[in-house]
Amino acid sequence: MAEKVAGPEIEKLVQLLAKLPGLGPRSARRAALHLIRKREELLAPLAEAMRVAQERIVVCSICGNIDTSDPCTICRDARRDGSILVVVETVADLWALERAGLLNARYHVLGGVLSPLDGVGPDDLAIASLVRACSQCNGRWTDDCALHRRCAVAVRREGDASRPRRAGRW
Amino acid sequence: MAEKVAGPEIEKLVQLLAKLPGLGPRSARRAALHLIRKREELLAPLAEAMRVAQERIVVCSICGNIDTSDPCTICRDARRDGSILVVVETVADLWALERAGLLNARYHVLGGVLSPLDGVGPDDLAIASLVRACSQCNGRWTDDCALHRRCAVAVRREGDASRPRRAGRW
Repeated sequence: MAEKVAGPEIEKLVQLLAKLPGLGPRSARRAALHLIRKREELLAPLAEAMRVAQERIVVCSICGNIDTSDPCTICRDARRDGSILVVVETVADLWALERAGLLNARYHVLGGVLSPLDGVGPDDLAIASLVRACSQCNGRWTDDCALHRRCAVAVRREGDASRPRRAGRW
Repeated sequence: MAEKVAGPEIEKLVQLLAKLPGLGPRSARRAALHLIRKREELLAPLAEAMRVAQERIVVCSICGNIDTSDPCTICRDARRDGSILVVVETVADLWALERAGLLNARYHVLGGVLSPLDGVGPDDLAIASLVRACSQCNGRWTDDCALHRRCAVAVRREGDASRPRRAGRW
């Protein structure tokens, strides 16, 4: 009885699919079979979409979102209200807020939260670019600085320490 | 507020991932983000594995298994006991039985079960090739025909009608 039920190419596909969140070894095998059965409708387009993603996706230099353009689609959107900056932990949070469709704002992706136990300090997060994004008036906060006056922070409870604080501003 | 949170390339990737069994729209988005974060370790190898699968995977002309070679790995395995033919509904069943590792047999994939309500008749299943696989003695069943005398049928209960019957043989 062979340990491998198929050639190494299929086993490799199954193993890689099993690394996706939401898929375990069994569901990865089902997914591989489904892909192979739907070769023209799904396997070929998905392989092509992955190739494009691999080649073209970049991190937005302004907000930290990921997109195929820099600045990203959101940062290039002139209809966005630039006076609201929503600070999120990850790109997934940004996407979730966008899907909810409640905000007409700009974002800043921290890339994590402060977690001394895990060895994550301020230098590991996108704090410097956040300060730059907020400090539009030559780095000084003045009463005339309307931009980014309101700043929502959408991070998990563990991220309380990550919330940027500035007297009377947050 | 844009309906699309990212460029069309990422949205396309998410939509295609959502078509995999086990992934819904939300988990597909998580999977896409995970792939993009792990570009070198996961996205690139998975895209390549899919390309290889798309180009090289074929259906075994003997048993109906899928593999990158025809005959498939199992049919080419000389250590298999050719006197046992396990008839299964799908390739997924074949793989599940192989993973269990209890059988040293050959297989035949029916490709479904008889289901008049769904319009699936004998002509839609791999019955002819099953008869060929079983009828090794010029299509006649004789007492000397040792090959494929034992035939296990591993199909769902709905597939009872699909079970091949031949007086005293099954």
